[in-house]
Amino acid sequence: MGSTFGNALKISIFGESHGAGIGVVLDGFPAGVTYDEAFVLREMERRAPGRNKQSTARREADTPRILSGIYNGKTTGTPICAVIENTNTRSQDYQALLAQPRPGHADYTGQVRYHGFNDPRGGGHFSGRLTAPLVFAGALCKLYLKTRGVTVGAHIQSIAQIQDTAFDDVAVSAQELDALRLQEYPVINPRARDAMLSAIEDARMDCDSVGGVIECAAVGLPAGLGSPMFGSVESKLSAMLFSVPAVKGVEFGVGFGFAEYRGSHANDPMYLDESGTVRTETNNNGGVLGGISSGMPIVFRTVIKPTPSIAKRQNTLNVQTGQVEPLEIHGRHDPCIVTRAAPVIEAAAAVALTDLYLEGYGYAD
Amino acid sequence: MGSTFGNALKISIFGESHGAGIGVVLDGFPAGVTYDEAFVLREMERRAPGRNKQSTARREADTPRILSGIYNGKTTGTPICAVIENTNTRSQDYQALLAQPRPGHADYTGQVRYHGFNDPRGGGHFSGRLTAPLVFAGALCKLYLKTRGVTVGAHIQSIAQIQDTAFDDVAVSAQELDALRLQEYPVINPRARDAMLSAIEDARMDCDSVGGVIECAAVGLPAGLGSPMFGSVESKLSAMLFSVPAVKGVEFGVGFGFAEYRGSHANDPMYLDESGTVRTETNNNGGVLGGISSGMPIVFRTVIKPTPSIAKRQNTLNVQTGQVEPLEIHGRHDPCIVTRAAPVIEAAAAVALTDLYLEGYGYAD
Amino acid sequence: MGSTFGNALKISIFGESHGAGIGVVLDGFPAGVTYDEAFVLREMERRAPGRNKQSTARREADTPRILSGIYNGKTTGTPICAVIENTNTRSQDYQALLAQPRPGHADYTGQVRYHGFNDPRGGGHFSGRLTAPLVFAGALCKLYLKTRGVTVGAHIQSIAQIQDTAFDDVAVSAQELDALRLQEYPVINPRARDAMLSAIEDARMDCDSVGGVIECAAVGLPAGLGSPMFGSVESKLSAMLFSVPAVKGVEFGVGFGFAEYRGSHANDPMYLDESGTVRTETNNNGGVLGGISSGMPIVFRTVIKPTPSIAKRQNTLNVQTGQVEPLEIHGRHDPCIVTRAAPVIEAAAAVALTDLYLEGYGYAD
Amino acid sequence: MGSTFGNALKISIFGESHGAGIGVVLDGFPAGVTYDEAFVLREMERRAPGRNKQSTARREADTPRILSGIYNGKTTGTPICAVIENTNTRSQDYQALLAQPRPGHADYTGQVRYHGFNDPRGGGHFSGRLTAPLVFAGALCKLYLKTRGVTVGAHIQSIAQIQDTAFDDVAVSAQELDALRLQEYPVINPRARDAMLSAIEDARMDCDSVGGVIECAAVGLPAGLGSPMFGSVESKLSAMLFSVPAVKGVEFGVGFGFAEYRGSHANDPMYLDESGTVRTETNNNGGVLGGISSGMPIVFRTVIKPTPSIAKRQNTLNVQTGQVEPLEIHGRHDPCIVTRAAPVIEAAAAVALTDLYLEGYGYAD
Repeated sequence: MGSTFGNALKISIFGESHGAGIGVVLDGFPAGVTYDEAFVLREMERRAPGRNKQSTARREADTPRILSGIYNGKTTGTPICAVIENTNTRSQDYQALLAQPRPGHADYTGQVRYHGFNDPRGGGHFSGRLTAPLVFAGALCKLYLKTRGVTVGAHIQSIAQIQDTAFDDVAVSAQELDALRLQEYPVINPRARDAMLSAIEDARMDCDSVGGVIECAAVGLPAGLGSPMFGSVESKLSAMLFSVPAVKGVEFGVGFGFAEYRGSHANDPMYLDESGTVRTETNNNGGVLGGISSGMPIVFRTVIKPTPSIAKRQNTLNVQTGQVEPLEIHGRHDPCIVTRAAPVIEAAAAVALTDLYLEGYGYAD
Repeated sequence: MGSTFGNALKISIFGESHGAGIGVVLDGFPAGVTYDEAFVLREMERRAPGRNKQSTARREADTPRILSGIYNGKTTGTPICAVIENTNTRSQDYQALLAQPRPGHADYTGQVRYHGFNDPRGGGHFSGRLTAPLVFAGALCKLYLKTRGVTVGAHIQSIAQIQDTAFDDVAVSAQELDALRLQEYPVINPRARDAMLSAIEDARMDCDSVGGVIECAAVGLPAGLGSPMFGSVESKLSAMLFSVPAVKGVEFGVGFGFAEYRGSHANDPMYLDESGTVRTETNNNGGVLGGISSGMPIVFRTVIKPTPSIAKRQNTLNVQTGQVEPLEIHGRHDPCIVTRAAPVIEAAAAVALTDLYLEGYGYAD
Repeated sequence: MGSTFGNALKISIFGESHGAGIGVVLDGFPAGVTYDEAFVLREMERRAPGRNKQSTARREADTPRILSGIYNGKTTGTPICAVIENTNTRSQDYQALLAQPRPGHADYTGQVRYHGFNDPRGGGHFSGRLTAPLVFAGALCKLYLKTRGVTVGAHIQSIAQIQDTAFDDVAVSAQELDALRLQEYPVINPRARDAMLSAIEDARMDCDSVGGVIECAAVGLPAGLGSPMFGSVESKLSAMLFSVPAVKGVEFGVGFGFAEYRGSHANDPMYLDESGTVRTETNNNGGVLGGISSGMPIVFRTVIKPTPSIAKRQNTLNVQTGQVEPLEIHGRHDPCIVTRAAPVIEAAAAVALTDLYLEGYGYAD
Repeated sequence: MGSTFGNALKISIFGESHGAGIGVVLDGFPAGVTYDEAFVLREMERRAPGRNKQSTARREADTPRILSGIYNGKTTGTPICAVIENTNTRSQDYQALLAQPRPGHADYTGQVRYHGFNDPRGGGHFSGRLTAPLVFAGALCKLYLKTRGVTVGAHIQSIAQIQDTAFDDVAVSAQELDALRLQEYPVINPRARDAMLSAIEDARMDCDSVGGVIECAAVGLPAGLGSPMFGSVESKLSAMLFSVPAVKGVEFGVGFGFAEYRGSHANDPMYLDESGTVRTETNNNGGVLGGISSGMPIVFRTVIKPTPSIAKRQNTLNVQTGQVEPLEIHGRHDPCIVTRAAPVIEAAAAVALTDLYLEGYGYAD
């Protein structure tokens, strides 16, 4: 009913930014997957705040405590629960926030949705902090997918108007995706990184924020997964991706670029490679045809809107006075969350692809 | 497992392009909605093929026969089933198609997914013809939503490189949306229409095809519907929209444009209008904040890729010979399906919004 | 939201007793299963009314017309839709029925549920006639399960106070189940049949009706299907079985008999048979332990309440006058539906077990 | 996929008997419900082990720690997570258990289901201990239902062959149900209790165990909830009830007794009470007609099989030797779990009814 996703694998995320803790339950995760704790912690660390000046000063250990589902170093097949304690909460006054819902945030819509009872502190359940358990779930799914030959990875495609080189959508490899994961700022073209950081710094100096695009790929997914219509690979992935706070657009392959393509350029002609596998010369469709995986890399992009919490003065409604009044948001906020978004988008994709994979192959074999 | 969608309202679509018939079951549709047959048939007609030279020469009456769920002119609340007979099927040889799967189509992925048993004729269940029952379902949902003050409408935002004027995302009205529905080519700027038709004709003369973008809006949806994370309005809408064949991208509000926005411009400042309703001065977030409706118009765009069936020669794999060989696709195909896509996208949105609405308000009251 | 069931296989049943038609959509049914039409029609015939004096005089051909999902004699893997036209409807006056809801029927609860808009004629969507599409779906599922070595069958365990011999729950075989299917009245002990028919005739002469119990078994299901807690084999089967009109109880293995067992008798001791398979000496648990199939026959019983439509005078509320008034229900009604219930219960079980099987083994292999 | 249930309210239960902790996430629980901690702890205490000699000697504080979803003493509407630490685990050798799966337990089926990777200690995720988080979830649901005028309660209908007086299924009241909750052994007839305890003591002295029946009622549920077919009140309740370990049968109203009823006795005649509400003189259908609530008390019974863990010697398979060998199960086990089952069955019912209620009434009003 909101925070539960999936079919063959179900994940349920809970917690509020300044409550006792946050976490996730994974139900249906396959048995017998080796729990690589170092890998999982590294994934958590990639997303964690407070690592540099692009990100919020809030610093959380973000160490997941596993309550169930892992035994003798392997997954048991029964539900996995991981909890992350909230240690660095602040008891500041949130009355102001109730009076003046932050523009671009869920403060107002959350109050309507929950009849005024939801926890407003730090955004409560709407906080970007809730992506930490998603990254944990995604890290486990990556471990499972790896056993099946599937690798998921992402890079920062753009921040502000600075573009990184795009993936080579027919040739992107597991090695390339794994290497990106080790970068503090995952980009293909190192010069793009410097320009991006500079654009972020400009925004920060202006008490403002910037958005960007994450490009993500999954390689090794066999052909024939997914279903026509509502069970399409794109439907499942997009439903998951739009659940990540700040994502406002998702496109597969050429995506919105198709609007200016002709069919003769858009179509991906097939051939047989030396190993006897059907492949396409181009991959404009991003590895999905008719909702079903083609065996080519799955490639998609998601746009991340600029952080709505900005120190710059905004004029917006005070719901208690009924007047438009100035608002300056202070506290610990990222001038750009795109730099931390790649592991979140990867995690979201890994969870959705694991569900897709398990629907196709079942738990019994 | 593919062709079934929804929660409070479930729809199940069935049929193959050249089988006996196609249709839809709506389970959970509210009781007591007046069945406006003229409206429903008009919606079907908007999507139907064969009306002009932009669309395929296949001509189907596309008249839905209602088997259940409507009694004394009103919906009963129990499942509604509508069937559309396939009258204009052709018994041509599909062996060629099995040998040489069409690029950009689901021919190959469908064969893998269904182990070679799916009906290949005319694309089978993957055919764009399956959007006819979706439009029927959407027409019913529009009738329901109208009783709740919600109106859904769309226009052609672009075809090839020709842009229509965009919706005014704060002021778009039910009247405007209803008026667009009456146009053969729903555009806001009539000059854009002429340029679009000209671009389509160019493509047709080249034995090629073009894509485009549909912009859709829903007005009147109350604030507070949807849920954080996986139950977001965007998640539900996108899961449905990506099930429409040829849709490869979905964006809400400013969408991918956010990548180049700063937070100070992206945020939508709130105010109280004269009726005491909270509104925003801009609507960059497309009526959704934190996954929950804000009460502002829901505005989104979907990209439609160019029709993959083109008469122009393509070189692609013959799976029987293992060789790349030339392919020319003859038969009845649209050089541009964007002109017929607006009612389909509207229908998809209306179904998803009805499900969202019923989750919020239930069936009991 | 009522008439849709399942996960890996979804079925959606539609129709009203006196509407245009009834039918079912199966979404997710495996590709490549041979459609044995003679078998399916025989299953439909087993349930069909009007075959003898124990059953209603309404006579319907009940021939399913297949609209989609079967091609070249095999299932395509895409949705299967079958429609049964309602040919023998009567345009009698249902005003009386609206005034005086029949006790034991859904007339009153249906009116509340659907705010008075549901089709009241012949019970509408609540009619036992809606088990015809369920039997169609079940027949297809039996064909699939047969390819996997699973056989489902049932017998009349009791009618009124007459008991048939129970299944030998460790030794019941596919042969025995298939043989029962050929009997007009599926019983193990032929003398029980005569006594049952006599009890039914007594009730009929009294303008009354009788209930009974169906015992059902599934053999050949591998161990390891199902899940602990909410995904238990019993949960899935019972959710389906309680959807059959008139079913008011479901028990597995010894069932309610366990209340008087001691643990030392209830436990099923394990051993290894000559083929190296783990089996149990007794099967008190009905083939399910901890919610998961044990590899032993699945055995369960469902109670069918007496037909509520009786010619005998009853005093019940007239909702228009507010008074309790006499009611005599005339028309075509079975004095006992248990004789026709075995194929329905089998069908329900076959659908649920197919869903269970497909969750375990997936569609991809 | 096993441990997740529900639609408008989803609960996800996790944990293993001897792991770090167990718990539950409730997603979709209504906002604004006052958290009555004393009530919740009392409910937990009713189920907790180690309170008397009928129950296992394992003693756990079973105090739920709430990580999210409750703020300022009220539910927030966003997911509630409660964790119960496992403090009293024992590091005994479970190798014996792997060699000789306990008859009547999930040891063998769990090993097959999870390919040998599930945690075998104390039954792991299959342990009856996992009913503790279910009782927590049920306690919250009772608090919600109370705000809507719905009360759920249960009594021990039988243990061994000792019967308690049954509920008066037309007159059972909230007061009576609330009073039963305060009893250590909830029975209507105090003399039944003494005989039950004596029967349990007999079994315990024999190193054996006994089963029984719980009768449960819900009063105050409005008419018109639930749906025909797969969405029936019985389907939803039974799917939940069969997820409780040891439940092997569920019946509504007269249940299996219907097999010997005639229609004229089975039907519940309607009348209008002084307040203008439609009621029935009898309630043989247990408050459900056609799958939909009638407004009369919901009444059902579940059978609980005897505890399979018994000290008495059993001969069963040693899977390592392939031989049948004697087994005596020592450790902390209840000779009868029926005495602790009433709060569990109530909790299961409260969760299912809350989901049913929320489907009917939604979250928006």
